[in-house]
Amino acid sequence: KEEKKDGAEQDNKDPTKKKERLLLKTAKGTRDYSPAEMFCRLHLENIVKDCFTTYGGSCLDTPVFERKDVLTDKYGEDAKLIFDLQDQGGEQLALRYDHTVPLARYLAMMGGTNTQAKLWQVGKVYRRDNPVMSKGRMREFSQADFDISGVWDPMIPDAELLSLLCTVLSKLDVGEFTVKINHRKILDGIFEVCGVPQDKIRAISSAVDKLDKLPWSEVKKEMTDEKGLDPLVADKIGEYVKYKGGPALLDQLTADTILMSNPNAKQGLTDMGLLFTLLKAYQVLDKFSFDLSLARGLDYYTGIIYEAVVEASAPPGFKAAESFASSQTENTAAPPPSKKKAKAGAEDEEIDETQVGVGSIAAGGRYDNLVGAFLAGAANNAKEAKKIVGIPCVGVSIGMDRIFALIWPKWVERGMRSKGTMVYVMSAGDGLLEERVGLVRELREAGIKTDFLAKTKPKLPTQFAAGEKDEVPFAIILGTDELKQGLVTVKEQRWELVDGKKVKLESTSKGTQVRRGELVR
Amino acid sequence: KEEKKDGAEQDNKDPTKKKERLLLKTAKGTRDYSPAEMFCRLHLENIVKDCFTTYGGSCLDTPVFERKDVLTDKYGEDAKLIFDLQDQGGEQLALRYDHTVPLARYLAMMGGTNTQAKLWQVGKVYRRDNPVMSKGRMREFSQADFDISGVWDPMIPDAELLSLLCTVLSKLDVGEFTVKINHRKILDGIFEVCGVPQDKIRAISSAVDKLDKLPWSEVKKEMTDEKGLDPLVADKIGEYVKYKGGPALLDQLTADTILMSNPNAKQGLTDMGLLFTLLKAYQVLDKFSFDLSLARGLDYYTGIIYEAVVEASAPPGFKAAESFASSQTENTAAPPPSKKKAKAGAEDEEIDETQVGVGSIAAGGRYDNLVGAFLAGAANNAKEAKKIVGIPCVGVSIGMDRIFALIWPKWVERGMRSKGTMVYVMSAGDGLLEERVGLVRELREAGIKTDFLAKTKPKLPTQFAAGEKDEVPFAIILGTDELKQGLVTVKEQRWELVDGKKVKLESTSKGTQVRRGELVR
Repeated sequence: KEEKKDGAEQDNKDPTKKKERLLLKTAKGTRDYSPAEMFCRLHLENIVKDCFTTYGGSCLDTPVFERKDVLTDKYGEDAKLIFDLQDQGGEQLALRYDHTVPLARYLAMMGGTNTQAKLWQVGKVYRRDNPVMSKGRMREFSQADFDISGVWDPMIPDAELLSLLCTVLSKLDVGEFTVKINHRKILDGIFEVCGVPQDKIRAISSAVDKLDKLPWSEVKKEMTDEKGLDPLVADKIGEYVKYKGGPALLDQLTADTILMSNPNAKQGLTDMGLLFTLLKAYQVLDKFSFDLSLARGLDYYTGIIYEAVVEASAPPGFKAAESFASSQTENTAAPPPSKKKAKAGAEDEEIDETQVGVGSIAAGGRYDNLVGAFLAGAANNAKEAKKIVGIPCVGVSIGMDRIFALIWPKWVERGMRSKGTMVYVMSAGDGLLEERVGLVRELREAGIKTDFLAKTKPKLPTQFAAGEKDEVPFAIILGTDELKQGLVTVKEQRWELVDGKKVKLESTSKGTQVRRGELVR
Repeated sequence: KEEKKDGAEQDNKDPTKKKERLLLKTAKGTRDYSPAEMFCRLHLENIVKDCFTTYGGSCLDTPVFERKDVLTDKYGEDAKLIFDLQDQGGEQLALRYDHTVPLARYLAMMGGTNTQAKLWQVGKVYRRDNPVMSKGRMREFSQADFDISGVWDPMIPDAELLSLLCTVLSKLDVGEFTVKINHRKILDGIFEVCGVPQDKIRAISSAVDKLDKLPWSEVKKEMTDEKGLDPLVADKIGEYVKYKGGPALLDQLTADTILMSNPNAKQGLTDMGLLFTLLKAYQVLDKFSFDLSLARGLDYYTGIIYEAVVEASAPPGFKAAESFASSQTENTAAPPPSKKKAKAGAEDEEIDETQVGVGSIAAGGRYDNLVGAFLAGAANNAKEAKKIVGIPCVGVSIGMDRIFALIWPKWVERGMRSKGTMVYVMSAGDGLLEERVGLVRELREAGIKTDFLAKTKPKLPTQFAAGEKDEVPFAIILGTDELKQGLVTVKEQRWELVDGKKVKLESTSKGTQVRRGELVR
């Protein structure tokens, strides 16, 4: 009786407060996944995990929350999106924002010896952003990360990782995808060559990052009006960042003597050359678009950066990046859609979901200084901190919710099953509960996914209906007389997709009699 | 350069504050799981998930945090252990404490129609308790839950669930285990018959629950001195709760006319009779100990309750419950170990880990009113709330961390591998990077877990050492001359356990030459 009342009260300590009605819902930006959806999600997750282990990866698991100082100063502007836990008389804690920072913290804790490892993590991360649920943009969302740590020869881990990304995306059946790729050192070199002051480089870089959502004219305006850049410098940048392409673009840039005179740009372009050779050996080069407008928001990247996109990634009115197959060097940005500007932090800001794309479905890059930063931070003094040699890393995060948002409608359309049960054990007539349980037990022990109706004396049509709900392909029917002769009936059932609905195929067969003792061997 | 400093500062907004050294650690009561440990944990998780689907279960996923009012008033005294999120200008949120309450919230949200389902969840839950890390008692810990919801015939779902529990524990190789089982209605009946006032029943029940850690004399003291129970009433309870046994105990209780005159006790004993019959059909009856001292802490149970224990479950000096095989009716409690009493809530309270057992490795029960409580709480008014018909449920939670704490030492002892890589591709001589990449790509495409050294021109011994670190059973060696003839060398490698260490078996074989083109078909 007491329980009946409980849910109704948000605070029953305060007797003056009127009982509030319970809001029966999940927290903003989070959702439940139903059994049918989870059947699809687990399928997708298994594909990803299989690829991860096939590439020699080992699983790592870190806690969902970290000591707050571990996450501090890692995410630039986005730090405001971190979920904090309430101080309940202990440590200051916060939910993890990604898998990369906890991984770097782990590697630093392992002693910072030069660990060479391939580590993967699949799990949820948390951001207090404005959710667009239908596009898989959530406050709680699932990321599958793969990272290669340690000093190796140049670009081999990077190529290994990008090959992995292409393999995963191909197997996930997301449709045509493109991996936009750039290099932080090339970008920095371009900015330096164009005359951007050092203290404006990160701000200008984050303006460039918006070129997938805004036309150049607006991005230029941000650079000059908001960020005080000389319009002539902005125009020079505009010349570079419109370039997209493949090895030919690399040749073009390598022939640019002004750019090549900049040490950063030269290093970046050398890396890209090596990378292209390896991507060719991995037979994935055609998936890539060398895209000078790609900048990526996070602070910690130091080398190559990349983002995988599909057609649904772009907001309506924008084309998704095109790969080498249809290489072009013109910016295809359409006029900006009439989209309400979402202000992060405002709790009830509405987003027009029809004007938002799925966004990139995977992204990552090289971050050579993050582990070292942790080690330096934990050092006894500045002198020791200076001697720290960190662990270079390169990694990728695959956005499982965005991929699910792409795949799920296809599953529904194809009428995929939502359960793997193979056998439904039934009784005709007298209930035969213990006999049913006995057979169910045997079948399950043999590894066969089996179910039955938890009723003492169920009617046969009720049992068939229960099995049909899950499209269970085999019915095994027990009857008192048959059992005396040591027999049971096995009946196969099939379904087909008619006008988008699963329909059971009619069958005149009464099934096949099989010896009970020979059913499981 | 900037990144190097970041980790060192807990708050770089305040210039007067001295840079604090970063504490490189995980939050209290949480830990990372290394690749070797995760290899074991994933193996255990897969066994559990396989059993869950074999029993007809479907996966459900709910968010890690809930709106706070969803968790309010569900956990009795333990509510103080809930982790709250900081109010950052939105909803009041808290981390989930278990999977049961979110499941009930989900079922209520699904419209509260009489959903008959088998649902499983595997994931982490959170409690601000005093951790005992070595025994798998954590603040963040992993539970695998299976629940059967809906109106079915009596005790069939209950037996199905208990059969599942026994199957899972047998397959997990936890060693000999016992499932202690009792029924809330039998307990309530006993308390009523002995003369416990209605308003003291839950308090006396929670005193009884301590009989697995304290001798009767101390529990009686709590009942009388702390909770004001008449000593004569306590003595009567003491007579009942010492009983443990099997069907014979059931017969004994059913013959107790005073007990059978109590409607609660009668209902509970009838349920137990049905349950024993079904457990026999499932061939698991010998795993159970009908234990009148089992009470379970949580408020929401309404029918059978159970707890699976192994020898390591009990604190030193206590025997774990014995099953029917060695049935006995005497309480085996030893004198209390000299254990510091841990006060929940005190952040830095130390627990003497040598004096703590692993605790129960799985537990659960029937909770018929929880979904209804959500529906009533969300109803428009009291009149509507009264009409609500809830969804009866029965469920079990398996403590994956405690099971890991039992299994992991065995894995280490047996020298289990910590990775599944099958092939390591190497080059003898000239590096042959692109050739190695090409073969690695082909092998992986064929589903073979393959790795290689990310170096341009690695030495052969370095490559062998890298493969041996992971005990990779097959080395494939590429040589320039051999490749010209279309050949590669395949070499099998074996290890054995010598004095607890893995040692590679010496082999005089130089491997087998295989045609490169026929390696993958």
